Amino acid sequence: MQEKPTKVQKLKTKPTILKLGGSVVTRKEKPLTPNLRAIKRLTNEISKANISPLVLVHGGGSFGHPLAEQYGIKEGYKDSSQIMGFSKTHQAMTKLNKLIVDSLINHNIPAVGVQPSSCIVTKAGRIQSMDEKPLKRMLEMGFVPVLYGDAVPDAKLGFTVLSGDQLVSALATKLNAQRIIVGVDVDGLFDADPKIKKTAKKLSHLSLGELKQLQGNVGKSTACDVTGGMFGKIAELLPALEKGISVTIVNATKPGRIYKALKGESIEGTLIEKE
Amino acid sequence: MQEKPTKVQKLKTKPTILKLGGSVVTRKEKPLTPNLRAIKRLTNEISKANISPLVLVHGGGSFGHPLAEQYGIKEGYKDSSQIMGFSKTHQAMTKLNKLIVDSLINHNIPAVGVQPSSCIVTKAGRIQSMDEKPLKRMLEMGFVPVLYGDAVPDAKLGFTVLSGDQLVSALATKLNAQRIIVGVDVDGLFDADPKIKKTAKKLSHLSLGELKQLQGNVGKSTACDVTGGMFGKIAELLPALEKGISVTIVNATKPGRIYKALKGESIEGTLIEKE
Repeated sequence: MQEKPTKVQKLKTKPTILKLGGSVVTRKEKPLTPNLRAIKRLTNEISKANISPLVLVHGGGSFGHPLAEQYGIKEGYKDSSQIMGFSKTHQAMTKLNKLIVDSLINHNIPAVGVQPSSCIVTKAGRIQSMDEKPLKRMLEMGFVPVLYGDAVPDAKLGFTVLSGDQLVSALATKLNAQRIIVGVDVDGLFDADPKIKKTAKKLSHLSLGELKQLQGNVGKSTACDVTGGMFGKIAELLPALEKGISVTIVNATKPGRIYKALKGESIEGTLIEKE
Repeated sequence: MQEKPTKVQKLKTKPTILKLGGSVVTRKEKPLTPNLRAIKRLTNEISKANISPLVLVHGGGSFGHPLAEQYGIKEGYKDSSQIMGFSKTHQAMTKLNKLIVDSLINHNIPAVGVQPSSCIVTKAGRIQSMDEKPLKRMLEMGFVPVLYGDAVPDAKLGFTVLSGDQLVSALATKLNAQRIIVGVDVDGLFDADPKIKKTAKKLSHLSLGELKQLQGNVGKSTACDVTGGMFGKIAELLPALEKGISVTIVNATKPGRIYKALKGESIEGTLIEKE
């Protein structure tokens, strides 16, 4: 359980942002199917690590992506048939969020679901405005806000898909985070796609400069993903890295790794730092 | 179904704000029990009336109130035992919201759940900041945002309960609404509490001036309600009335009345206007 404030106070410690990929919390190839076993195990790890302040962001996996693809939500408004599609995509994501928040509450973690579409407007797919005041107040009170990649209103396109990765980067910057932990279904960042190329080499530690040099070579994830694969993830986190916020990429499908990453223990994974 | 925009456009018609009381959409005396029959019937009436732009706000009823009372959420932070209570109260409200949005989507209404706690911070119980940009964009696109009375972060108290009625008034003002329709479990506004006093007289039409004169006499609702009864509801709507936004109070437990109110047809109820 989180340490609770004895009275209402301003935040003294910088937050940790934990991203749990859609391929971790859902069965990515089966529409609308959560991976309840993984959710429970990860909830346990988060509870045991007892980190505060903490912000959680999860991906859409098989809840968000199939519907978003079916209705072309990411591409924005083209015809009226998409309107119900947006509603359905958003509602599917709130359902996944509910399952994860329920699991956290059952483990005595004071989780609060926060809908990106309620406080964010994008413009041509990039965050244009974001009201972070409720989030800041929640963190000051010891709550664990739980956000997600979402179907959001867009000032130019009408609507679009906001990826969990773009959201993580914006949150880290706006909330002045200490670090970002990205839980995925591979062991870290490789110099090629490890799911395709057996000889792909894992990179344990990278500077921002080294990362930029690598950009052209990074493999893309194989599973269907409207928000892009590993390359997209990393590219989205560049603004946070530029601000000195470290990024740890870790395999969240392997038991104990998220716990260790939260505790700052040495793990198999990839650490990216500004310098 | 809503009329859809042929392309992305600015809002030309002023929105209608429809409030559905907690005593209408839940079984108020049974904890965590929705009134699914009423929700389905009301969804049908909303679908048939086909009004756009439309914003829906529902109360907490037996989802929000028992938990909010148990943990003293309205009174704000006093000790750490309330932290989990806030999470549980908020989560119960998102569950009720999900049921209502599901029903609307099933009736082909492009509903989008919007969490007040994601975009509102109160100060000592009154709305201090509210990000209405996502809401405005959703209305322009033809969506029906569905909000609710919620447990929200508070700049002074830590957290509190934001009533659906305060929310309705703020939304009406911020979104420049044409009118507010308040669906309750009585036939309108009476000069005394009709549930207690058999001789209570219904007021069919009132000016703002007449309403202010009456304020001292209006009865309070009998059922447990952390946000106050009929008097509280009306008092909250005064700022909207001052702006020239009309308020219609109608019995939403009686079939057809919400439909008629939405269509602007003459109904048994109470109409309050500025002049």
